[in-house]
Amino acid sequence: MSVTNAADNLATLIRCPSVTPAEGGALVALEAMLAPLGFAVERVTASEAGTPDIENLYARLGSDGPHLMFAGHTDVVPVGDEAAWTHPPFAAEIAGGEMFGRGAVDMKGGIACFVAALARYVEKHGAPKGSVSFLITGDEEGPAINGTVKLLEWAAERGERWDACLVGEPTNPDHLGDMIKIGRRGSISGFVTVHGVQGHAAYPHLADNPLRAVATMATALMHPPLDTGTENFPPTNLEVTTIDTGNRATNVIPARARFDFNVRFNDLWTAESLQDELVRRLDAAAADQTLRPGRAPIRYEITWSERPSHVFLTRNDALISSLSGAVEAVTGKVPALSTTGGTSDARFIKDYCPVVEFGLVGQTMHMVDERVALADLETLTTIYETFIERWFQHAAS
Amino acid sequence: MSVTNAADNLATLIRCPSVTPAEGGALVALEAMLAPLGFAVERVTASEAGTPDIENLYARLGSDGPHLMFAGHTDVVPVGDEAAWTHPPFAAEIAGGEMFGRGAVDMKGGIACFVAALARYVEKHGAPKGSVSFLITGDEEGPAINGTVKLLEWAAERGERWDACLVGEPTNPDHLGDMIKIGRRGSISGFVTVHGVQGHAAYPHLADNPLRAVATMATALMHPPLDTGTENFPPTNLEVTTIDTGNRATNVIPARARFDFNVRFNDLWTAESLQDELVRRLDAAAADQTLRPGRAPIRYEITWSERPSHVFLTRNDALISSLSGAVEAVTGKVPALSTTGGTSDARFIKDYCPVVEFGLVGQTMHMVDERVALADLETLTTIYETFIERWFQHAAS
Ligand SMILES: [Zn+2]
Ligand SMILES: [Zn+2]
Repeated sequence: MSVTNAADNLATLIRCPSVTPAEGGALVALEAMLAPLGFAVERVTASEAGTPDIENLYARLGSDGPHLMFAGHTDVVPVGDEAAWTHPPFAAEIAGGEMFGRGAVDMKGGIACFVAALARYVEKHGAPKGSVSFLITGDEEGPAINGTVKLLEWAAERGERWDACLVGEPTNPDHLGDMIKIGRRGSISGFVTVHGVQGHAAYPHLADNPLRAVATMATALMHPPLDTGTENFPPTNLEVTTIDTGNRATNVIPARARFDFNVRFNDLWTAESLQDELVRRLDAAAADQTLRPGRAPIRYEITWSERPSHVFLTRNDALISSLSGAVEAVTGKVPALSTTGGTSDARFIKDYCPVVEFGLVGQTMHMVDERVALADLETLTTIYETFIERWFQHAAS
Repeated sequence: MSVTNAADNLATLIRCPSVTPAEGGALVALEAMLAPLGFAVERVTASEAGTPDIENLYARLGSDGPHLMFAGHTDVVPVGDEAAWTHPPFAAEIAGGEMFGRGAVDMKGGIACFVAALARYVEKHGAPKGSVSFLITGDEEGPAINGTVKLLEWAAERGERWDACLVGEPTNPDHLGDMIKIGRRGSISGFVTVHGVQGHAAYPHLADNPLRAVATMATALMHPPLDTGTENFPPTNLEVTTIDTGNRATNVIPARARFDFNVRFNDLWTAESLQDELVRRLDAAAADQTLRPGRAPIRYEITWSERPSHVFLTRNDALISSLSGAVEAVTGKVPALSTTGGTSDARFIKDYCPVVEFGLVGQTMHMVDERVALADLETLTTIYETFIERWFQHAAS
């Protein structure tokens, strides 16, 4: 079986209904593609109390360094309104030069292209002088507890070491070649409860309306802006994501209210320094008398998300210039080196080796009628193949 | 049966478990007190689709003017945690010089005292030269739809006209004689829905967080203060009573949020002029770019409470000076003439005749162990009797 055609590889993977956390046959299919190329394939099941068991895959070709890792996931998000799809979500039907299916761009397509790229490389050059491995999880779209984190720990314990990693997530906003991601903002969430004093709306002096404090506190978190961005990062941004009270009586001042917020922060901050600044703002707002004239500071409690994502920036020139050069050679475009957007498993991999991300165009990810242009599959395969060549050349020089 | 003892009258009324909307025997008992005094008593059942039928009572002594109305209610709020009462809520037990029971101060006590005061007046002077009527509803603590409003309409249709009204609600904050209420702020509630654009917290520029607008809009409603009060009224006050979103995903910017507010407004405003000002503030806040830099005004909808309470102030000197003089003569205190506090049925009566409110000390109203000092019952009876004397003297002069 030849796996040099990315569209064929992708069709095989799309036909496996691997809606997270189900394996759905996708890792079995991937193993069948990699083993004939000479990969030693390991299937690793990870489990933790209170979460579903997850199947993952680690495969390595070669035993020496330099060692390049390709990382990704075969699980996909649910199909949503299946009746709204113009082609069935697990059929890999082609229409108008596009292949339809859940996971087409996020990110079975990236895996299909890297497999094809590596197969072509081996056909032309033989096995790389070094190693290539696939680190593929079935738990990226789910809670991400039994996935990449555990697979990395498992591999590192066996002595696996990597020199660089490419994550195949869809990174391009509009066109293939737009954007490589070389880092990511950190992310942390806060959960605040504000304790006022309940009372009758006609006797506000006998009560203490927690919503007066909430308005001031929410405003203070969002304004002034925390910073204006850095050379490699966009500005830190905070969004209040919910405010809830649940008081249905308009003549009653409620006893308490709560709100949550999420911050995406750049390399001017650590999670700790950011928490300090936000608590400083909340304390000042709780004592502010603009909306609560003559009042003592209101009492509030804050808890934080258990696992904040830390900010990171990859500075490895061999990795970035090999990938950026490959993109430019194939597409004629110089890709932006970006740190925008949501978290990905790159945040875990960065603790083991330099990591960058580049994949398909993300526009239809997570949507009805997720699909990929066949031309893009071919272009991405060529980019990946060129990248593999350049990275091993660079490593050998 | 003599009804000159207010405590006896109150015990009879407390033993009728007239938790709104139940009549509970309270109006039957009141009719039995009034009929022997010469009152023509009418029981008026009011009904409206979707609400429980309510029994009310109208009783008149005399057929000529001047005509003094006493208004109130025999329904009471639920007992709450019955096990927490130190004396049963419908037993009228006396301990430490106080009578315990639901409605003791709000406001079976006021009714009991006015019945006793009138009985004493008649014993001393014979029937008043004019008329006295009782307008008593069983729907003040409930939705107030089948109560005072319908009873007033019913009576007015039969040709009833009044020159003045005393409402016997508990008006005194701490001590009998503290406070007469001569008017009331208006009250109106607003219900706002703010429409943003849902999105991922990592891509805020692709979303439009409605909670940014909510924080600004809520602040703009409350600050700056709408006014600083007038000669007879406290400042207009607005409380945001709930903000709700219901978004449990901290990585998601919600599509919409809602909030409610209630305003108690003084005689600088009408409901209409106030609504205009608040919409002007909301529009400005919706367009404010402090928390939403570069954004177009956010879309919001507002609805208002169906029946706003309009502000009113009673200026009738005969009524106010008779009552104030009676309070001072009996207690030695000059009562404050106040317009503070929550709405009462006086807001409906004011469309028919001048109305003031004076009753017991309100501290235990609506609470567990609602109770009244026996001494207060006697003092209030004396005040009411003195008021009846002075009001008819004033009217005759
Ligand atoms: Zn993905
Ligand atoms: Zn009452």
